[in-house]
Amino acid sequence: MSAAPFSPVDPVDLTARLIRCPSVTPADAGALDLAAALLEEAGFAVTRIPRNGVPNLFARWGARDATRRFGFNGHTDVVPVGDGAAWQRDPFGGEIVDGVLWGRGATDMKSGVAAFLAAAVDFVRRTPPADGAVVVTLTGDEEGPARDGTRAILDWMAAQGEGMDVCLVGEPTCPEALGQMMKVGRRGSITAYITAQGVQGHVAYPHRARNPLHGLTALLGRLVTWPLDAGTAHFDPSSLQITTIDCGNPANNVIPAEARATLNIRFNDAHTGTSLSEWLRSHAAAVEEETGIRLSLRTEISGESFLTAPGDFTELVAAAVEAETGLRPEASTSGGTSDARFIKDLCPVVEFGLVGQTMHQVDERVPTAQIETLKAIYGRILAQYFA
Amino acid sequence: MSAAPFSPVDPVDLTARLIRCPSVTPADAGALDLAAALLEEAGFAVTRIPRNGVPNLFARWGARDATRRFGFNGHTDVVPVGDGAAWQRDPFGGEIVDGVLWGRGATDMKSGVAAFLAAAVDFVRRTPPADGAVVVTLTGDEEGPARDGTRAILDWMAAQGEGMDVCLVGEPTCPEALGQMMKVGRRGSITAYITAQGVQGHVAYPHRARNPLHGLTALLGRLVTWPLDAGTAHFDPSSLQITTIDCGNPANNVIPAEARATLNIRFNDAHTGTSLSEWLRSHAAAVEEETGIRLSLRTEISGESFLTAPGDFTELVAAAVEAETGLRPEASTSGGTSDARFIKDLCPVVEFGLVGQTMHQVDERVPTAQIETLKAIYGRILAQYFA
Ligand SMILES: [Zn+2]
Ligand SMILES: [Zn+2]
Repeated sequence: MSAAPFSPVDPVDLTARLIRCPSVTPADAGALDLAAALLEEAGFAVTRIPRNGVPNLFARWGARDATRRFGFNGHTDVVPVGDGAAWQRDPFGGEIVDGVLWGRGATDMKSGVAAFLAAAVDFVRRTPPADGAVVVTLTGDEEGPARDGTRAILDWMAAQGEGMDVCLVGEPTCPEALGQMMKVGRRGSITAYITAQGVQGHVAYPHRARNPLHGLTALLGRLVTWPLDAGTAHFDPSSLQITTIDCGNPANNVIPAEARATLNIRFNDAHTGTSLSEWLRSHAAAVEEETGIRLSLRTEISGESFLTAPGDFTELVAAAVEAETGLRPEASTSGGTSDARFIKDLCPVVEFGLVGQTMHQVDERVPTAQIETLKAIYGRILAQYFA
Repeated sequence: MSAAPFSPVDPVDLTARLIRCPSVTPADAGALDLAAALLEEAGFAVTRIPRNGVPNLFARWGARDATRRFGFNGHTDVVPVGDGAAWQRDPFGGEIVDGVLWGRGATDMKSGVAAFLAAAVDFVRRTPPADGAVVVTLTGDEEGPARDGTRAILDWMAAQGEGMDVCLVGEPTCPEALGQMMKVGRRGSITAYITAQGVQGHVAYPHRARNPLHGLTALLGRLVTWPLDAGTAHFDPSSLQITTIDCGNPANNVIPAEARATLNIRFNDAHTGTSLSEWLRSHAAAVEEETGIRLSLRTEISGESFLTAPGDFTELVAAAVEAETGLRPEASTSGGTSDARFIKDLCPVVEFGLVGQTMHQVDERVPTAQIETLKAIYGRILAQYFA
């Protein structure tokens, strides 16, 4: 009813200060200190959870066993600047020019972190929920191997009896306009490393050799043209992409002994990593039999597909986005992986954040007004969740 | 009728002395000096014809405008030793152990050169033909680019009014037993360098990228499985071999922008270099249209196919081989290219020489008895030709 006894946190200034920490994975460069100071001042209990050199942070406002526990997750690490000379502005300068904030992490995702930190701090100060907890988890390794980042936080939480009932990940999710899209799941990812072994020889005597490139080409041709599926209720069609083929034979009169290829499949819930591994192996065996070329393969499953089914939480996020932006966000499962793939084992997880167009690119930048809107969306989500 | 007033040339010792010249292309290392001294002593007019640093030699016994002119052709250069430590004997030692002569060039083709030098010198000394000429051409670049080797000699011969009516090339031609095979032609050879250009992107967003490896795989798959022909009267089927595919993309979440492949076709007289170039381009255009991947290709025709039709000369060689070895040599057009592809424009050319099993390998070696037999074959061919 009266003037608030505190100033709201400015998410644009906070983003700029985070950008000025050159926290290229695995460096932290003071980013988590900024977050910790802000959270502690607002009454959060903050715990650092480093693992194998990766900086991580867990913070909770409210009781561990509160009835309703809302979580935010994000990362403070950023990808390298790439060609530094190509940037129009200092990638770690955090400069604001004509309403646009420039720098590495401006969209992915120091702005998202700043927006939910600002929203969370303002919320617990202004309208502290009676029997609720707000949890913030931050990692310094989402862009890297991601083995000791959010996974480490979740391991620690399990050991400590900490929990969340829902979690919002602040990654950039909108293709072009703020409000367009939220992510409610992801396709799985499997990578296959294929080695084709033949018998070296002279091209003039092909009957004395066995060309590994012919076996490899035959296998890849089959795999690329095989229709994996036509999409499912909540997912796009699965997609197989050859990412490299390499042989390195400089002599155009020599049939090489060996060649290698790598492919990656982004797959929906019609498959699992194991089913695709078997599918790849069965094709390799068939082509091996046809061609006499030994085709061995090693697979790495980076993640299975997952889905946060449409329900209260997805509706709450969608409604808040629509109220602030006028756009009803599409519930998508497209795009690359994120730490949501780990969190989904603990609680329903939804991702919503900024427009990702310049992420990972030279001249990464964001209109400051979008950071303000994002904070408003996150604040509205918190208010509705605890209403 | 009486004892000859000269000692016959020992082809084994001559081979060993040639092997001791480390004449790895483009080095000569004294090899042509050895040949020149021997030829001059026997009354040959010897001319050195270096071109662009490549040592070449032309020698003629008898008159330039003789009625019958028999030519021998060979090369004194050798391929590199490869893994020197893997050799059981010094590759340039010319050692004879238990009747076997070891060293680089023992089969390809210092033995062949020594055998025809010895046969030619003995022949002109012992039974000089009345109205005949014996021509010897030697080059120091057959194993290398072969642009300034036998070609240079032929250019010089044309300018000087020199000629040959038939030519025997002393390359190794027998797969396993001396006498098995002579070469009466060769398939042509064309190399195609293919570049596939797509649009780089993230594997999670394939609709925003175009994968050059998918276009390249589709094209190569078509080409490899396309039946070029089933062989012709004197030729094996044409054969297409992919020799390398390279992309060099280390990131398994990235669709690369570009990839390259090289292929080589050994083709028979059902095709020409031009017809195959057009065939390759038409397939590339079709796959480009199907896939949207830009597929450009550059072709290099190393040689067209050619055939020395069965006739007096092929019969003369075959009969001499059979007389000395008991084997009737198959008239083959198989195998890699040789300088016969240049000589065929001047006169009928046949290749006959040793067993090539160890050529270009570690521990290249030859039983000395085979060099003696080869000299006898060449001597018999000369005698019959001028009979
Ligand atoms: Zn991110
Ligand atoms: Zn040779």
